[in-house]
Amino acid sequence: TKEAISMASSSSLSPPKVPKELYFINREKVLNSLRQHLTETSRPLHGFVLLQGGEEQTRYCTDHLELFRQESYFAYLFGVREPGFYGTIDIATGKSILFAPRLPPDYAVWLGKIKPLSYFQEKYMVNMVYYTDEIVGVLQGHYKEPGKPLLFLLHGLNTDSNNFSKPAQFEGMEKFETELNTLHPILSECRVFKSDHELALIQFANDISSEAHVEVMKKTRVGMKEYQMESMFLHHTYMYGGCRHCSYTCICATGENRIANGIYVLWFSAVLHYGHAAAPNDRTFEDGDMALLDMGAEYQFYGSDITCSFPVNGKFTSDQSLIYNAVLKAHNAVINAMKPGVCWVDMHKLAEKIILESLKKGGVMVGNVDEMMAARLGAVFMPHGLGHFLGIDTHDPGGYPKGTERSKEPGLKSLRTVRELQERMVITVEPGCYFIDALLVPAMENESTSKFFNHEVIGRFKDFGGVRIESDVLVTANGSKNMTSVPREISDIEAIMAGAPWPSNKTAPSNS
Amino acid sequence: TKEAISMASSSSLSPPKVPKELYFINREKVLNSLRQHLTETSRPLHGFVLLQGGEEQTRYCTDHLELFRQESYFAYLFGVREPGFYGTIDIATGKSILFAPRLPPDYAVWLGKIKPLSYFQEKYMVNMVYYTDEIVGVLQGHYKEPGKPLLFLLHGLNTDSNNFSKPAQFEGMEKFETELNTLHPILSECRVFKSDHELALIQFANDISSEAHVEVMKKTRVGMKEYQMESMFLHHTYMYGGCRHCSYTCICATGENRIANGIYVLWFSAVLHYGHAAAPNDRTFEDGDMALLDMGAEYQFYGSDITCSFPVNGKFTSDQSLIYNAVLKAHNAVINAMKPGVCWVDMHKLAEKIILESLKKGGVMVGNVDEMMAARLGAVFMPHGLGHFLGIDTHDPGGYPKGTERSKEPGLKSLRTVRELQERMVITVEPGCYFIDALLVPAMENESTSKFFNHEVIGRFKDFGGVRIESDVLVTANGSKNMTSVPREISDIEAIMAGAPWPSNKTAPSNS
Ligand SMILES: [Mn+2]
Ligand SMILES: [Mn+2]
Repeated sequence: TKEAISMASSSSLSPPKVPKELYFINREKVLNSLRQHLTETSRPLHGFVLLQGGEEQTRYCTDHLELFRQESYFAYLFGVREPGFYGTIDIATGKSILFAPRLPPDYAVWLGKIKPLSYFQEKYMVNMVYYTDEIVGVLQGHYKEPGKPLLFLLHGLNTDSNNFSKPAQFEGMEKFETELNTLHPILSECRVFKSDHELALIQFANDISSEAHVEVMKKTRVGMKEYQMESMFLHHTYMYGGCRHCSYTCICATGENRIANGIYVLWFSAVLHYGHAAAPNDRTFEDGDMALLDMGAEYQFYGSDITCSFPVNGKFTSDQSLIYNAVLKAHNAVINAMKPGVCWVDMHKLAEKIILESLKKGGVMVGNVDEMMAARLGAVFMPHGLGHFLGIDTHDPGGYPKGTERSKEPGLKSLRTVRELQERMVITVEPGCYFIDALLVPAMENESTSKFFNHEVIGRFKDFGGVRIESDVLVTANGSKNMTSVPREISDIEAIMAGAPWPSNKTAPSNS
Repeated sequence: TKEAISMASSSSLSPPKVPKELYFINREKVLNSLRQHLTETSRPLHGFVLLQGGEEQTRYCTDHLELFRQESYFAYLFGVREPGFYGTIDIATGKSILFAPRLPPDYAVWLGKIKPLSYFQEKYMVNMVYYTDEIVGVLQGHYKEPGKPLLFLLHGLNTDSNNFSKPAQFEGMEKFETELNTLHPILSECRVFKSDHELALIQFANDISSEAHVEVMKKTRVGMKEYQMESMFLHHTYMYGGCRHCSYTCICATGENRIANGIYVLWFSAVLHYGHAAAPNDRTFEDGDMALLDMGAEYQFYGSDITCSFPVNGKFTSDQSLIYNAVLKAHNAVINAMKPGVCWVDMHKLAEKIILESLKKGGVMVGNVDEMMAARLGAVFMPHGLGHFLGIDTHDPGGYPKGTERSKEPGLKSLRTVRELQERMVITVEPGCYFIDALLVPAMENESTSKFFNHEVIGRFKDFGGVRIESDVLVTANGSKNMTSVPREISDIEAIMAGAPWPSNKTAPSNS
């Protein structure tokens, strides 16, 4: 019995150490890239990269402290987990400096063993640490050129949120020249290509999250609540993976309306939405429901983003199998086709095409698939983009660098990147197939597209909801590597839900 | 085996429904109180109470959505769980109106079954619901007096955070008169006295959190990490209690330095602190460590705040017993003494005195306890206040209404209220005894207080850390009722940690 209990709640994994060099390497990469850019544009190699870290937040007017999570660009360069810091890189010398908030004197008294600045110097592998109230003097002291020192600040558009990053601000800024246009694209581009150290963290986030997904599958039963799946996932990744944060709020959607809502939110951002405020995953599962679980843990700033879909009663119906296998086939085909030089838009279309072909085979659609593609019917079933970069942010930046443009076509306009794949990119592959009245009905009523739909068969899928399958995939030199390791075949899922073991450290498939 | 697994992770509780009248009753109470105040100050009974609800937040420049939690005053009056609302009460008619954000048109298209405004009217038991962009016209339409309609807005100091609440803002405000001084004290005072419906939610938050504390005690072992206790607590309260939020970030402190840090943070707010950013509960337990676990779940906005202290190896040493029992005696004595009319400052001093007496009995202190009290030595061992109001906020407002004043004396200055107890107040009773060099050393070196310390014995407690015992207590007509139900006696704790069962629904002790 004792053994059974510990088996029921254990893990083969344990949280790895974060190598200190990770942030050092990130800084070197950005420094080199910036220096190269300055050289190419005939500008002098001096000035400072200056970033401001995140601040702690209290809830409204109260003293309730929100859990702090570092701003992502700052995390990328300095890895600092504490609020209230600034960080700089001296472009001339390459030296890095952190500025730590000065602690209230009574804090020092209380704790006795207050952390000296050298603690941060060692912990984050920077050259120097000062207090934030010393920024002006320190930067002026390190600047060897005539005139005001030049600061490269972070200012640029996040193409997923349409928000701009906030440039560093501090008292005495008027003593500096500031430059807002150079740093953001360079830093974003550096973040697109993951180092080995970064990949190790993303891999661990994937490993622990994959294991947690399996844990949830094992325990899912008709009559449970959606939030109980979320709770099991969070517990597993925190208890055994030390993951205090998730990459994003878990989406545990069951039933057709919830799934449609979830998709809407995921790709269009809404005021009232699933998995957040109003409807916190509180539906009770009914026999016959499909569950769509989009959940990923974050480990030491680096995320994972994984979706599993399965029937809550543990047995796929033939309709559920039809749709599930259509999506799985698309998922696998994309991963197999991925390699450097392949365009992400083509991958999106490949997924659409395979799904439409499968729907045709299953009697849901009728006619020529190329004509369906030309009519953009793929977007009726998969209105969102195929995937997005993943890293310190779930929707990692760099999807639309200068020179690229967002499509205006259905489905394609929701793509978070249109780039060619390159080695060391990590991107999610998340095809889906959904039955959403708001999209289906107009297409089925449209004179020119009505003929492609088998109206009678589609009626069967009215309350189906949808299926999404999402893995995190690394682009390698010759192909790709799926970093996610969860059961995908229907036979595996059904076996696990019926109690069979799953080798959580089974080697992930690779086509490289 | 199956049974053992399910026993190991189950609960006797299930989340109760929230009665719709809860918010209706809260509004009536505030309306009556405001009308009475206006009458007493010879002002007309018209105008509107207008509050703005919380807005959804994204993380820095990204599209990462933070989990939404409604602003507490708004939650108190309207119970709305969605972001972006306004709410009003017409003082003349008593009618309540909610203003919901207008959904983007494509959202409506997507979901098909978009929630009509009447959904909110029914759900939150208000008289009318409009869209937020209709505020100006609707309020003007309901105002039957000449001149600009009068708005009573929320503006006042939170005496725990020293922040001011943010008055409602909307486009077209210049068409109204606004009044900032009246509403906040009235609304805060209403929140101090809990209705039966509110008490039921606080009781459930206590029940599920108590059960979770016991679950953690059962599973704690040397070699575990602090965050694993947090994970188990969060999981239990979410999985079985549907508690998506905690009242505050869990403090799972073990070892002396951590505990000192935790106390500092709890009462003085610091930049870098325990349980949050830098040191996320990641210490590994060693044999001999005391654990101090301050964790409470929030259920449907209403919180709990519970601290248990115990040795991680499951067996109290004699020194641990000495300090633990000193604190427990103070905890019990306070709860037994609590009743309407009793002053909270006296309760604080009662706790101090009992702790000092126990320390004297245990050979830690020497001499006359009244003299120690006069020298404020109680604050050396318990530098924080005895407790605080609890409700929709962990540190619920109303602690320092007009006419009361914060003490300047050690310990007493940290009190979050100095009021006389009244029926229906819910207040935490959380005496503690800690050995913190920064406080002990000066007192032991001070010429006039040195003699009270047995310097040799205190040396034994150098690495002790501390003990806190915290329960949530309701003031009843004739006494008090402890809403928290966790094992407090050393024999009970040791038995549970050794595997004995604990009756989670054992009746809580009451002195009323
Ligand atoms: Mn994704
Ligand atoms: Mn408390």
